[in-house]
Amino acid sequence: MKRLAVTKEELIAEFFQSLVPSVILVKPQISENIGTAARAMLNCGLHDLRILKGKGDHLSEKAISASSGADILLEKAKIYKTLADAVNDMNYVVATTARRRDMVKTIYSPEKVVEVFNDKIKSGQKCALVFGPERTGLDNDDIALCDAIVEIPLNPIHPSLNLAQAVLLMGYEWYKTTANMAEKQLYVGKEPIAEKGAVLKLFEHLETELENRDYFKVQNKKTRMQRSIRNIFGRIDLTEQEIRTLHGVISHLIRRIE
Amino acid sequence: MKRLAVTKEELIAEFFQSLVPSVILVKPQISENIGTAARAMLNCGLHDLRILKGKGDHLSEKAISASSGADILLEKAKIYKTLADAVNDMNYVVATTARRRDMVKTIYSPEKVVEVFNDKIKSGQKCALVFGPERTGLDNDDIALCDAIVEIPLNPIHPSLNLAQAVLLMGYEWYKTTANMAEKQLYVGKEPIAEKGAVLKLFEHLETELENRDYFKVQNKKTRMQRSIRNIFGRIDLTEQEIRTLHGVISHLIRRIE
Repeated sequence: MKRLAVTKEELIAEFFQSLVPSVILVKPQISENIGTAARAMLNCGLHDLRILKGKGDHLSEKAISASSGADILLEKAKIYKTLADAVNDMNYVVATTARRRDMVKTIYSPEKVVEVFNDKIKSGQKCALVFGPERTGLDNDDIALCDAIVEIPLNPIHPSLNLAQAVLLMGYEWYKTTANMAEKQLYVGKEPIAEKGAVLKLFEHLETELENRDYFKVQNKKTRMQRSIRNIFGRIDLTEQEIRTLHGVISHLIRRIE
Repeated sequence: MKRLAVTKEELIAEFFQSLVPSVILVKPQISENIGTAARAMLNCGLHDLRILKGKGDHLSEKAISASSGADILLEKAKIYKTLADAVNDMNYVVATTARRRDMVKTIYSPEKVVEVFNDKIKSGQKCALVFGPERTGLDNDDIALCDAIVEIPLNPIHPSLNLAQAVLLMGYEWYKTTANMAEKQLYVGKEPIAEKGAVLKLFEHLETELENRDYFKVQNKKTRMQRSIRNIFGRIDLTEQEIRTLHGVISHLIRRIE
């Protein structure tokens, strides 16, 4: 059995060895964008940054400051001259692009492409996402080198994203598949959710005090009224502490004000 | 039947009338962040921006410039003093928060919360997402006002997002549910995908020329070899033009060089 990583250093070392999609920035023009892209990568569990050098400098002060602590990715970034060089050791490469080109090419949704990546990574294949220069995007020769295209669905009235935002959305889609987050959970801290018996005792406490005060005076409506109240509290997953709180609320409400 | 919006002005007017989740920024401190948050909202089909005024000024040059053309959202932004005021006309309000608090509260994943929003919006309810100030996040009283919490899954090694990035990720999750994008499609422009008959004719062309050149000389392996080749091209959804291209490739390959 695999030993669980314990220290932060071990976690980080393990992270940099994990097989996850690479990010290839083709000729980024603005240093800040390289930094914010690196930050987005680290946010989303991506670590292999490859750059085809453009005007932007990934080791400049601006890039490092914009990375907000993700400078380790900038330091480790690999530099290439051509996209062919950058994808040489890759098995499956997907281009991100906003405009449709006159090319016969598979277009994936972001969700689907990370599913495809996951399947390939499970069989040991190396995958990469390619992002073009800020203003112009990828040229057609670069896209032809890629196996497929991914399109991010955005409001057609205002679809332009900056480079780091595109990296963030794709990285986020990737990270979600690995994070396996619960869709819905009730955060209760250390407090246990009450058992049904305790909930029923609360109902009985409330109903007894209501009964004593003639709340159920029309006897043939009593069951329906009771049921309505139980349905209100039944929609809440009450903790043991909350049950105690509500007992206290009832006990105080019935006090006579002197 | 609803008439389809035709002009860009009509599309925009329709967009601003659509019932979509509101975004409430609680005391944003940095003007640029309000601008980039507005840009992210417009990217993702959100238009109702509500602000509890902090140090940031949503009508400053910095905010407008950072919004990259989404300044209409800044102009239309509604300003409030308290979160209670801002959510007064809302039916369902969800807080975004990174830290877990000592509160019993439902926590949703981003995907699940937009599903919940969609259900509520279909029955005419108004929903909002609440984002706290940049450094401190929402305070516990503000969170107690909200119906639930949404947590964005991020790499625990480096989970910090800036305000606009958080707005973008949540907005993107929302927009995806409305965009209904195909998971996978082959972009072929105006070119039709070939019918099977045309694909078979291509196979026959290739196989005849191979047969003529003794490719299938071991007769008992012929079927298997044929099948392998057909499986290669069968994995591709060829267009009619591509079929013509491949016929041309075969015709040229068999030419004798003088």
